[in-house]
Amino acid sequence: MRAVDIIRKKRDGGVLSAEEIRWFVSGITDGSIPDYQISAFCMAVYFRGMTFDETAELTFAIRDSGEIMKLPDIGGLRVDKHSTGGVGDKTSLIIAPVVASLGVKVAKMSGRGLGHTGGTVDKLESFAGFRTDLSRDEFVSAVRKTGIAIVGQSADLAPADKKLYALRDVTSTVESMPLIVSSIMGKKLAADDDCILLDVKTGSGSFMKTKKRSAELARIMVDIAKRSGKRARALITDMDKPLGNAIGNSLEVIEAIETLGGKGPADLTEICVVLASEMLSMSDRGTPDECRRKVEKVISDGSALATLAAMVKEQGGDPRWVYDTSLFPKAKYSAPVTAAEDGFIVRTDTEGYGRAALILGAGRAAAEDPVDHAAGIILHKKTGDRVSPGDVIATLYTNRPETLEEASAVLTASTVTGPRRPASKPLVLGRIE
Amino acid sequence: MRAVDIIRKKRDGGVLSAEEIRWFVSGITDGSIPDYQISAFCMAVYFRGMTFDETAELTFAIRDSGEIMKLPDIGGLRVDKHSTGGVGDKTSLIIAPVVASLGVKVAKMSGRGLGHTGGTVDKLESFAGFRTDLSRDEFVSAVRKTGIAIVGQSADLAPADKKLYALRDVTSTVESMPLIVSSIMGKKLAADDDCILLDVKTGSGSFMKTKKRSAELARIMVDIAKRSGKRARALITDMDKPLGNAIGNSLEVIEAIETLGGKGPADLTEICVVLASEMLSMSDRGTPDECRRKVEKVISDGSALATLAAMVKEQGGDPRWVYDTSLFPKAKYSAPVTAAEDGFIVRTDTEGYGRAALILGAGRAAAEDPVDHAAGIILHKKTGDRVSPGDVIATLYTNRPETLEEASAVLTASTVTGPRRPASKPLVLGRIE
Repeated sequence: MRAVDIIRKKRDGGVLSAEEIRWFVSGITDGSIPDYQISAFCMAVYFRGMTFDETAELTFAIRDSGEIMKLPDIGGLRVDKHSTGGVGDKTSLIIAPVVASLGVKVAKMSGRGLGHTGGTVDKLESFAGFRTDLSRDEFVSAVRKTGIAIVGQSADLAPADKKLYALRDVTSTVESMPLIVSSIMGKKLAADDDCILLDVKTGSGSFMKTKKRSAELARIMVDIAKRSGKRARALITDMDKPLGNAIGNSLEVIEAIETLGGKGPADLTEICVVLASEMLSMSDRGTPDECRRKVEKVISDGSALATLAAMVKEQGGDPRWVYDTSLFPKAKYSAPVTAAEDGFIVRTDTEGYGRAALILGAGRAAAEDPVDHAAGIILHKKTGDRVSPGDVIATLYTNRPETLEEASAVLTASTVTGPRRPASKPLVLGRIE
Repeated sequence: MRAVDIIRKKRDGGVLSAEEIRWFVSGITDGSIPDYQISAFCMAVYFRGMTFDETAELTFAIRDSGEIMKLPDIGGLRVDKHSTGGVGDKTSLIIAPVVASLGVKVAKMSGRGLGHTGGTVDKLESFAGFRTDLSRDEFVSAVRKTGIAIVGQSADLAPADKKLYALRDVTSTVESMPLIVSSIMGKKLAADDDCILLDVKTGSGSFMKTKKRSAELARIMVDIAKRSGKRARALITDMDKPLGNAIGNSLEVIEAIETLGGKGPADLTEICVVLASEMLSMSDRGTPDECRRKVEKVISDGSALATLAAMVKEQGGDPRWVYDTSLFPKAKYSAPVTAAEDGFIVRTDTEGYGRAALILGAGRAAAEDPVDHAAGIILHKKTGDRVSPGDVIATLYTNRPETLEEASAVLTASTVTGPRRPASKPLVLGRIE
């Protein structure tokens, strides 16, 4: 086989065989196919798409490009929730301790943030000393002891995806359904959980800007997970406005702690309860109603928070920070962003909010950049809220004061006000099983 | 500017500005834009196309990426004929001496062959000792002395095209109108002739398989040449069957010598007379009728052949070979290809004929391969000819006997016979001015 022929076949709208896809992905993994052929292939896929079978084969080939994370020594059903990424999405920090405190095993591998979306690993590293680089033995031992551990992705996990993702990012081939699906699911299936709950974001802050496209993405991912023998479900959830009020690493951790303690913002609390209940019911822990009541109980009685504290301790952080969030280092500089007009916030460009946080230092523009754990944004007004000129809609936090002006301008430009209150939208827009 | 944004803009169907195109081509030339972004860009152009203005800008940026071959010391109008490439196309070897013997300056830079199409430089090197690497001074001096010189392309000529062409070849992005146009015309305009006659091939042996696409290509190329201040015309000529009977380097040179001496095949002679007359009339050498008569005269009186001999001598070859073609080294092995059925040759896959010659050693599969100057094919029957089982339709020549079987099979598979004689087609299918 020759890469140039496979590119041509896809370019001309052909359907690639399983053998062709496997051969191409092996070439990506072992470096025998050069980057310029991979990027031309991605662009051809961008324009021509892939059938479900092709997408599934691509996913399985990416999964099989490295180590499969078999963890039989943990015992019991392992579940994971995966979000397609969004701005201010700290649900993993909340849901994982919730379900772990109810006896479901959480052995989670998470990524770092890139661009306007944050990563769970970066957020957890806001706890000074928190180790996300546990060895396999430490990882298994932590899960056996506390029921939960969250680590960074192993370099051996789906290496073909690492190469593909890095190239797609710089060749404008990110926004392709089969490439998105195979990237997410290739990694997820290599992590080898028994149950996978997908939280597919829709709206301005996510990959998929429309509900229809998000539902399509969810359908394909669930079907691919099932084809590989996993239990899988997906919820389609709103990302037209940020979840909760905090954007930025330690700011989000603090908000997650508040939510785990029953004092979080209503939207964030509700979505976490829904997602955690879904994970429990997937793991045979009761009817949907029973699962919801269990979730509400571990939040109200403090056991979810205690599970987080146990995980932080086990992974090298100071569990006292969970009970006294004033211990997190604060940014040196802050500045308010105020409303200029009278009216209602009718729409926000959530991606713009993410970009503002990135400018303040909360994210990375390139993979090797460090993040400022204290930088970020606290929102005081969100879509649907009334504002008057001078009202503080957000507070910016940073250790680099020279970024405040630009971040403020981006945030202001991403906030649209109008004369009438917009209709409120449900948080969960669809469910796919 | 960022390459990723320019790729995205083209991917989304946008029209690139002159500044964006110039910036991108500079990045190709100076190596600051990596190959994987160039190939993604080419694939986006493949799918989205380019406007005429974009194509012209891309052409001019490629032209300006290296040296412009200013040759004011030659004196007089310089003309060139460029063919879009075909199988068995030895017209340059004939036309250049014809028009040079009539006082038009021919200072020609030619390429080497790649894949199924041959290159004039390879063909000329069939003369032992023939130098195609003249220095600029030797080149100018040769043209001043004999009116003609044909050399290989300078490495400084349109270096952006070299990079682009090499990448397109391995990423299945060759067949794109704006990329074909800018590649051909970027180089042609850098050669800086005053008059350019384009011989746009159409049919199974060429880039453009239909007359409509060929006419479109010709129109764009002529208009771009004019926009840059050149005189330009194009003829659209048939490449559904090979020109003449010889395919392969020295075999084609021998056929060119026969044609220059008035003893060539009718189809090849006629196309050369038409093209040469057109070049003369573009250079103000008389009415079309007058030009045709002049061309016929230099062929019949031997002065065109004498010009070829003078060029061969000036560039280091032995001019006696022009008058005694038995001096060219012969291939050690030959084999006939015979017809299996009774009927007429109704169609040939000319590209297949080129591939058969490549297999015999006449061409190169990769840029660094050597060519076997003696290898190739002599056709005894062409489209429209009657054949009976056992009739020899072609003779194969090679120094590698192990290739004969495969080449024979490819040639046979590329020759379609049927019960009725096909309608004959004119050689010149269109003219664009």
